Amino acid sequence: MTYCVGLKIDRGLVFMSDTRTNAGMDSISTFKKMHIWEEPGERVIVLMSAGNLATTQAVVSLLDERNKTVGDRHPKLLETPSMYQTVRLVGDTVKEVIEHASPNGDKADSYFNASFILGGQIKGSPPRLFMIYPEGNFIESTDDTPFFQIGETKYGKPIIIRAYDRTMGLAETVKLLLVSFDSTLKSNLSVGLPLDLLFLEKDSFKVGLNRRIAQDDPYYRTISDGWSNALKAAFASLPDFPG
Amino acid sequence: MTYCVGLKIDRGLVFMSDTRTNAGMDSISTFKKMHIWEEPGERVIVLMSAGNLATTQAVVSLLDERNKTVGDRHPKLLETPSMYQTVRLVGDTVKEVIEHASPNGDKADSYFNASFILGGQIKGSPPRLFMIYPEGNFIESTDDTPFFQIGETKYGKPIIIRAYDRTMGLAETVKLLLVSFDSTLKSNLSVGLPLDLLFLEKDSFKVGLNRRIAQDDPYYRTISDGWSNALKAAFASLPDFPG
Repeated sequence: MTYCVGLKIDRGLVFMSDTRTNAGMDSISTFKKMHIWEEPGERVIVLMSAGNLATTQAVVSLLDERNKTVGDRHPKLLETPSMYQTVRLVGDTVKEVIEHASPNGDKADSYFNASFILGGQIKGSPPRLFMIYPEGNFIESTDDTPFFQIGETKYGKPIIIRAYDRTMGLAETVKLLLVSFDSTLKSNLSVGLPLDLLFLEKDSFKVGLNRRIAQDDPYYRTISDGWSNALKAAFASLPDFPG
Repeated sequence: MTYCVGLKIDRGLVFMSDTRTNAGMDSISTFKKMHIWEEPGERVIVLMSAGNLATTQAVVSLLDERNKTVGDRHPKLLETPSMYQTVRLVGDTVKEVIEHASPNGDKADSYFNASFILGGQIKGSPPRLFMIYPEGNFIESTDDTPFFQIGETKYGKPIIIRAYDRTMGLAETVKLLLVSFDSTLKSNLSVGLPLDLLFLEKDSFKVGLNRRIAQDDPYYRTISDGWSNALKAAFASLPDFPG
């Protein structure tokens, strides 16, 4: 499995992904699930993936290859005129890869499926955040639903629901994501460190922060240990059942 | 879906279950998922169920009917010599019902599957807590794994992992369960109020507390509102990401 979150705040877009992939309990590897295409000053596109690794790697490879090949008839990721055209391009590529992998032309509901979070900004329009389904269709975040999760989403959802606020700064948003990831890491073996963190500041058109957070990261340790204690203190602060 | 938790503490066994069942989003009903067989002074057996409602009702009906029928060749739930024999009886009944429902003799991995938490105490031996799989086999709780969850288990797991302590009293355990259920209720529409709460005090051989907790229950309101605030305060107490 996997855990990835893309979150929209007033200041921009924040992305976090884990790096564990597994095919069975005894076949565990580390793969980066966050992919970046950048044209500094003009656009940044971030794609995070969950699901079948062959599928997600094929999608990224195809996008990459077509972006670099001069004269390729396919639209290029760094040349699309809008984020909407970008997410359509990625969605179509997802559909193409899954259809190609499935023996009987089976589509999304197959062993080969995968889902994606795509976010970014292109000069002239605001930052946008999307979730792409294995069928290749997609939805966009709104003020009501300002974040998307893919993979092992349930453990880390309650804290995001309760603590998210669009006016949060980057520092507090990273704290929120680390708490959400820590709850997931503690509950599910298929999600694993290190984590990748990326911040795309609104109207900066470049990657603002791109950090790998490992087991021994001092801030991660502070949050992981501190959250256990803070949670216990929060729990203790509530009145016991009166019977 | 469903959410049920059975939890072992030094003082006894505590059970909590929701009451929502659904077949599609537009077919929602309220059903009690907690079933009790009691022979005061001698034994109490508690069974909670998740999964296909026809299956879980059939299991309970069969156990009930056979328990009451004089001369029935099947073992009776209130006459088994030990909790181990009790859980075997229930497991066999689960297997029987699922095999009967499945058209091709398909077994557990079918549309008809269901899982159960069984706990109780019979005079002469300690309280025991089991989880029964759709295959009819089962596992028992230990000091290392003192609780079982069935149904929509993920949202409410992190808080139990962090705050559970076997020396907890009943009042604190109920608080823990309500926090776990509240996180689940806030995240997943298929789990719904009211909740059923039952306490089986060690060596009491009778139901100690059996309470239905509805939306307007004052203690539930205190926990639900208080936990949001306590969680936000806990979150605020951690240092922000230093960048």
